[in-house]
Amino acid sequence: MSAKLLKGKPVSDAMAEKLSAVAAESTPRLAIVRVGERPDDLSYERGVIKRCTALGVEASVFAFPADVPQAELIDGLRALGEDGRIHGILPFRPMPHQIDPAAVKAAICPEKDIDCVGPRGSASVFDRTLPGFLPCTAEAVLETLKYYEIPLAGARAVVLGRSAVVGRALALLLLDEHCTVTVCHSKTREIEKLASEADILICAMGRAKKVGAAYIKPGAAVIDVGINDDGNGGICGDVDFEAAADIAGAITPVPGGIGVVTNTILVRNVVRAYIEKMNRKNHH
Amino acid sequence: MSAKLLKGKPVSDAMAEKLSAVAAESTPRLAIVRVGERPDDLSYERGVIKRCTALGVEASVFAFPADVPQAELIDGLRALGEDGRIHGILPFRPMPHQIDPAAVKAAICPEKDIDCVGPRGSASVFDRTLPGFLPCTAEAVLETLKYYEIPLAGARAVVLGRSAVVGRALALLLLDEHCTVTVCHSKTREIEKLASEADILICAMGRAKKVGAAYIKPGAAVIDVGINDDGNGGICGDVDFEAAADIAGAITPVPGGIGVVTNTILVRNVVRAYIEKMNRKNHH
Repeated sequence: MSAKLLKGKPVSDAMAEKLSAVAAESTPRLAIVRVGERPDDLSYERGVIKRCTALGVEASVFAFPADVPQAELIDGLRALGEDGRIHGILPFRPMPHQIDPAAVKAAICPEKDIDCVGPRGSASVFDRTLPGFLPCTAEAVLETLKYYEIPLAGARAVVLGRSAVVGRALALLLLDEHCTVTVCHSKTREIEKLASEADILICAMGRAKKVGAAYIKPGAAVIDVGINDDGNGGICGDVDFEAAADIAGAITPVPGGIGVVTNTILVRNVVRAYIEKMNRKNHH
Repeated sequence: MSAKLLKGKPVSDAMAEKLSAVAAESTPRLAIVRVGERPDDLSYERGVIKRCTALGVEASVFAFPADVPQAELIDGLRALGEDGRIHGILPFRPMPHQIDPAAVKAAICPEKDIDCVGPRGSASVFDRTLPGFLPCTAEAVLETLKYYEIPLAGARAVVLGRSAVVGRALALLLLDEHCTVTVCHSKTREIEKLASEADILICAMGRAKKVGAAYIKPGAAVIDVGINDDGNGGICGDVDFEAAADIAGAITPVPGGIGVVTNTILVRNVVRAYIEKMNRKNHH
């Protein structure tokens, strides 16, 4: 392996110090809203709670049965919105089929929407002058690129995948950083050729080890957002790490890469929501 | 010239018929909010009023002096938001320096925001499942591509320019249509090379006749969003039309292209805002 390894921990640690200082004087609180017991939700939940605890933020889980009627879940979400002790709300998605995503987006308290579920966050991704929290994963990618001082202005960035919270959001965030941005997806022709023109390649397709040597320009920064089942009880990214690490100039591992930073961004957003609330109080 | 000419009028006419039918039974009303008397604002105003009148929509101009204090303008915007006879509000931008754009975004009535000024529209561009009106120019480009049956799925689309209402919005709208989208701008390296790989080239840089033969792939669809002073008292696009028309497969003229469609989209949004209001009334 010749590529520089872009671990998530140093990025996360650099942010953590400031967060702990704020949390020490007060108690920001996160409400996790989980429907059912999907293994990936439970695994994500453990990671988020661990990170919250480490940084002095309280996390409470509000778990609903997998067959919860929509009205009951929405009532629960609204109650958390009105609860003055809660500063951030994180509903795990996707939810079971009886729950209309539009109802969740409409019910989440805008000021507590710390992972861009509802309209306040969506508006702020499109127009950065508007208030709101960006999707944590997209921000984690940007934070990692900046921490490791990957040159962004004028760089050719190719994003593989067009999900709302990663591909679409990152396209806009990278444009703000003056990258020339291309978004590829399942309908893209010659995807390997396009990917191999990238100075910065963001892999967010959700397909295990799909991105091999042919996708990578020698020296490129490869950011792996994928979290897939590796078939052996562990997780792996969208990138074939062994093949890519010899060609890339820098690469994030999975696990230990973007996921670590994402959890810290999430906690940072809870702390920020807490601070915003204090500021609103002081203005009244 | 070998390229098919993509005129705006047929696209506009196809939409107009339905709009007139709605307007005939009622009176949707647009409020134009203009600060000062910039020549391009006045020219745009004439075009919008003409199109409104032709389609049975009433347009009123609320003109403020160029040095209007921000508080006075914001009061005016709020009053229009509360005025039950007004269904759409169109503030001309950019505004003079004493007006904070954020104040305008916050003050415009979300349901009457027919050109994506405030957060409701921005949220809906990013997340199309959320309600709101898209930027008229970006929608005009999409409407034109669809009217002339330019193949979109899998096509390579390159957008030159990253303004909020055109470049950024179109990137997202074209992704929804399954294009592979690249956004280029002033910091892009090898912009001619990238542009010349496009099946669909959207020119929205605001630089007169900048896009010449070297930017265009033979047979490409070239969409010219630019409206620039041609130095002879007329307007011209971002594309060097004579040079491009021999290489492109299809091309929009300026004037007579996207601008014509944009005005009709604007009127359509006023009519839609009117219908949405009637529907809200009927539900109460």
